[in-house]
Amino acid sequence: MSVPVTGRASAAEKSTWHAAWLPSAAFRALGARDVLVHGDGTLVDTVLDEVTRACARHGGRVWHSPPWDVDADLVLASRTAGPVANAAAEAARLGATPAVDGTGDGSLGEEGFLLARVDGVTVVLADAPAGLLYGLFHVVRLGAAAFDDDRPPRRHQPALARRILDHWDNVAVHPVSGQVERGYAGGSVFWRDGAARREPERLRDYGRLLAACGVNAVTVNNVNVHDTEARLLTDRLGDVAEIADALRPYGIRVHLSVTFAAPMVLGGLPTADPLDGRVRAWWAEATGRVYRRIPDFGGYLVKADSEGRPGPFAYGRDHADGANLLAGALAPHGGVVRWRAFVYDHRQDWRDRSTDRARAAHDHFAPLDGRFRDDVVLQVKFGPLDFQTREPVSPVLAAMPATRLALEVQATQEYTGQQRHVCHLGPWWSEVLRFAPWGPAGDTVADVVAAGGLVAVANVGDDPFWTGHPLAQANLYAAGRLAWDPRLDPGAILDEWIELTWLPVTTGDPELVRRTLHAIMDDSWRTYERYTAPLGVGFMVRPGHHYGPDVDGYEYTPWGTYHFADRDGVGVDRTRATGTGFTGQYPSPWSEVYESRRRCPDELLLFFHHVPYGHVLHSGRTVIQHIYDTHFAGVAEVAAMRERWRSLAGALDPAVHDRVAERLDEQFRCAVEWRDQVNTYFFRKSGVPDAHGRRIH
Amino acid sequence: MSVPVTGRASAAEKSTWHAAWLPSAAFRALGARDVLVHGDGTLVDTVLDEVTRACARHGGRVWHSPPWDVDADLVLASRTAGPVANAAAEAARLGATPAVDGTGDGSLGEEGFLLARVDGVTVVLADAPAGLLYGLFHVVRLGAAAFDDDRPPRRHQPALARRILDHWDNVAVHPVSGQVERGYAGGSVFWRDGAARREPERLRDYGRLLAACGVNAVTVNNVNVHDTEARLLTDRLGDVAEIADALRPYGIRVHLSVTFAAPMVLGGLPTADPLDGRVRAWWAEATGRVYRRIPDFGGYLVKADSEGRPGPFAYGRDHADGANLLAGALAPHGGVVRWRAFVYDHRQDWRDRSTDRARAAHDHFAPLDGRFRDDVVLQVKFGPLDFQTREPVSPVLAAMPATRLALEVQATQEYTGQQRHVCHLGPWWSEVLRFAPWGPAGDTVADVVAAGGLVAVANVGDDPFWTGHPLAQANLYAAGRLAWDPRLDPGAILDEWIELTWLPVTTGDPELVRRTLHAIMDDSWRTYERYTAPLGVGFMVRPGHHYGPDVDGYEYTPWGTYHFADRDGVGVDRTRATGTGFTGQYPSPWSEVYESRRRCPDELLLFFHHVPYGHVLHSGRTVIQHIYDTHFAGVAEVAAMRERWRSLAGALDPAVHDRVAERLDEQFRCAVEWRDQVNTYFFRKSGVPDAHGRRIH
Repeated sequence: MSVPVTGRASAAEKSTWHAAWLPSAAFRALGARDVLVHGDGTLVDTVLDEVTRACARHGGRVWHSPPWDVDADLVLASRTAGPVANAAAEAARLGATPAVDGTGDGSLGEEGFLLARVDGVTVVLADAPAGLLYGLFHVVRLGAAAFDDDRPPRRHQPALARRILDHWDNVAVHPVSGQVERGYAGGSVFWRDGAARREPERLRDYGRLLAACGVNAVTVNNVNVHDTEARLLTDRLGDVAEIADALRPYGIRVHLSVTFAAPMVLGGLPTADPLDGRVRAWWAEATGRVYRRIPDFGGYLVKADSEGRPGPFAYGRDHADGANLLAGALAPHGGVVRWRAFVYDHRQDWRDRSTDRARAAHDHFAPLDGRFRDDVVLQVKFGPLDFQTREPVSPVLAAMPATRLALEVQATQEYTGQQRHVCHLGPWWSEVLRFAPWGPAGDTVADVVAAGGLVAVANVGDDPFWTGHPLAQANLYAAGRLAWDPRLDPGAILDEWIELTWLPVTTGDPELVRRTLHAIMDDSWRTYERYTAPLGVGFMVRPGHHYGPDVDGYEYTPWGTYHFADRDGVGVDRTRATGTGFTGQYPSPWSEVYESRRRCPDELLLFFHHVPYGHVLHSGRTVIQHIYDTHFAGVAEVAAMRERWRSLAGALDPAVHDRVAERLDEQFRCAVEWRDQVNTYFFRKSGVPDAHGRRIH
Repeated sequence: MSVPVTGRASAAEKSTWHAAWLPSAAFRALGARDVLVHGDGTLVDTVLDEVTRACARHGGRVWHSPPWDVDADLVLASRTAGPVANAAAEAARLGATPAVDGTGDGSLGEEGFLLARVDGVTVVLADAPAGLLYGLFHVVRLGAAAFDDDRPPRRHQPALARRILDHWDNVAVHPVSGQVERGYAGGSVFWRDGAARREPERLRDYGRLLAACGVNAVTVNNVNVHDTEARLLTDRLGDVAEIADALRPYGIRVHLSVTFAAPMVLGGLPTADPLDGRVRAWWAEATGRVYRRIPDFGGYLVKADSEGRPGPFAYGRDHADGANLLAGALAPHGGVVRWRAFVYDHRQDWRDRSTDRARAAHDHFAPLDGRFRDDVVLQVKFGPLDFQTREPVSPVLAAMPATRLALEVQATQEYTGQQRHVCHLGPWWSEVLRFAPWGPAGDTVADVVAAGGLVAVANVGDDPFWTGHPLAQANLYAAGRLAWDPRLDPGAILDEWIELTWLPVTTGDPELVRRTLHAIMDDSWRTYERYTAPLGVGFMVRPGHHYGPDVDGYEYTPWGTYHFADRDGVGVDRTRATGTGFTGQYPSPWSEVYESRRRCPDELLLFFHHVPYGHVLHSGRTVIQHIYDTHFAGVAEVAAMRERWRSLAGALDPAVHDRVAERLDEQFRCAVEWRDQVNTYFFRKSGVPDAHGRRIH
């Protein structure tokens, strides 16, 4: 049966928001072919819709199965719709060879797919509709290469089942944190001024972008749940259901941040004690209502007993009691609770050098390993502090073998330039995921979080470019791709993103665009690191908004984020021998590596050690000279970025070019400010002149 | 003719706001007497009303003249009502002896009065009703002593004709500065949420308090004039008129802060050029409308070309052109424009050590001396920076002999503890007023500003105690009294305030209350200085809100307020020899005194000089040891304050005692924070240990 080739127009094509990595031109190779889609259900309809639109634009034809005797270039077949035939069956046989990635049992799972080239036909075979959708976007990513005859069959399955974006979006504008907490891309795509936005087309396009990079869930509200947001669980549940409806066609499930005090603030109970029967009953009932309305609801996210949020401590219970309570309510429906491990004393006394915020998550949670239900996910920030540009990997990730752990990273650039600076985070996240807490022979962080997942705090808002800075889209893309396959090379991910997003729409030389974007972005995270806080010491940002330098900004505050610079040296002694003992939270070999001033990696030296300014790094430079050198270098690199970007004028839509150019100007201004404040601060303290005689104020 | 002894009940007696220095018990000595009031008009009616209420409460009797044959204990007579007789005439004859203060020409002026004791009768004689009102409050201040027979006749006239409180109150709540900019006493007494409060009783009581300490004008809105406030000049003028009506019975005239751009934003003109005829016509017309509605309107206050406010610079004109424009509009009606000299570059580059904000007012205004009309008042902040706890006196005050200058001080405690800290500012203002810019033989600041006046930024809000901290009332009182007579001893003013405010209402030992309040308050400004920024260097406050310590908070900002501390020393080199040359803005001898590191007073050393930590002060201590010592001492003094206040439990209304106790707790907490941050900062920088081995973190 041939289906009409005129499908629904993409919202993106007629809208004011940017197509990101799905410009219609990116569908050219696919859309010029004859395509057979086999299968049924919502997600197969989505695949069919995508193919239909692509073919309408690029001259191909579409069939919806059966029959099987079409002479197609591309077959997209879901086995849930019954047996497949011909090329698809042959592809399945080829794919039964040992898995290239994913499981080897022959099953492709809920989200996996097989890609094979059989007798001049490209076949995408899936066991379930979601797999077909991911397979479709894989074909889009491959472009013409998807139709190369020498392509070997390959099975694709996500390494992590949970690939989630947490939106820190408030429903009601919060007097301090605004519409989106730590948001740098305008308003929220979900909410505005206390109400749902009800813009299903934008949400559908958002879901489409997420599916195309591998994300399969979003949390629709901030972990800091205020009064209005609490009610999303009950009388405002309809708003959540509408978001779920808009995202469902792309396989995106919605999650909700809930307040642990919900039984009191919403249910009128006198307690939220997790061991109280009434509380348990209230959560069961409330959760049941959620699932009646949203059958594929994903689950709850909870920030409890952290930075003033309510939690089980008030009742003498612990985090396991709290998390297990909610897991018990969700389990009958297949939902999951994610419980955040971001717990520390935010009223620390800066005079007290024995308290160490870095220790807090491990101190709180490691003793609870084994106490959490199997279906609880403990969500752990990648580092022991708070999304810094450089931190060691959190020791919690190596301390809870009996607990399902998720890794939390921050796509929104709170500490990494707030989407005014180019800072491509793929390499950083990749480094974290590849980190081997037990040494090179052991598991990696990616292995540890396989059952829990990867969660990125979203960097998306109602900005026309989605992310404020157009180049920050790459962080969203990388988060999804690394969640799907943490072994991907971040440079290759960036290349995919460039190829999808910019090459199909450039009016200039595509290879110039590719080269230039790589030159600007590949090392941009390290450039940002160079001109900001040195050697892993962190912070040094303006308090409150966290933008721009303020070396002593957090030095005398209750936040536990200090550098202890004095006239002789700088850094935090976290050793067992003479410091806070934080190094002891790591297993071997890192416990010894970090403990040793000699062995500790340069980039983390000041996180673990307080050293004299004259201390010589592995690089051969002194700490103070390293500070000067990297800060001069970082600014020079930003200047070069700006020059490179100028070379793309004419090759890109002027709206994009102008937006990025303007932000690069701000990045340069701000980088100079960082350079001068940090260098001046340390020159005034140390008295050591720059070895190269450069100007320090 | 006997008037009824039952007058209008005081709003204060039945209201929720504090009686401050006019509790009804303070009227006991007067109210127990037989009193004759002679004169007519609004202010005499006020006097009569005051006396009537006092006598009703305390058993005295009141007559309103004529006849003169009453056997009164007290005669309050205004000569404007025609010839006076008997004791009053005799008093006038006695008062014709050379003036003790004020002019010697026999006239008492608009606000002066004569106080004499004649044949067992106390006589207050005035040439005008306002003088009678001030005389009445003087009798209240004297209490029983007003009726001592050995009291010599004395003429009283204000040294400064303009004694003004500037309210930085916004009509509409401003997103950053709130309802009251730099307000620490709740909301505004005039405005709430965009509208006039319309609480004439509270305003009348406010006016009464002001008259009783000598203030004769208030500015009803913030110098930063936003959109809503601009319209007070035109379509919201009725609100201003209502305030004027409420305050008029106590001789308080209202002033208005206006925007220089008013002809554009309100008048729709294409320009606000002060030399443009249409602009001149617009101001004349607008001002005429104001005077038709408020015949005793005081005048305009203008912040122009300062911190982003509009001004004459946009048209290539200068401040004299701007101020003269407005003076021209006001002069026909007897009003005055006050033009603020607070002009500086608030976008300074911290790297540029040659620019000096302290120089700015002098650089801008001194060259304009002689260019201002006679009826312009140039309003000069007391110091060259911004209301710091310690600054040198502004050199502008010695640089403009041909210009009428007013002195601006800040009763609202922006930089002096924000009405959470006890900081009695009378001694500081007194020091400024007594400062002799040309050396001991020359005029004082009080002489310089005699024609311009003293202006205090108000510390009053809708707080039940008026000023948040009950003891901050003393600053309001001192501002008025020093404006009336800058030679008054600040300790004596404080004593007056204690005697009026607390002794009549104490339930304990009055002498204990007096002693304790003196012990807490007398030196409280110097105590505050001890635990905050050292040796006149200023700032070191948290940016934005300016509360609590942040030593480097302003060090790398565009605000021009730096301390330049490094590992070797601290302070700002403002000398001619090696620094910014600011010392050259002073006449001899201060120009030489400040230039010399040896001669410069200790308390201003770091304002004028960058010195090594080992520099020895006149006190014999090194700079670094001075920093440590004063910070330990300051905290110890606050601890003692707190102890002393505890001893007054039971002697004062619990609401007052609790409020002050709670603020002293916060003052102590904050003082400890100041001590530890400042000491730690300088220890880390200098490496010099405390000579007494005290704990520095």
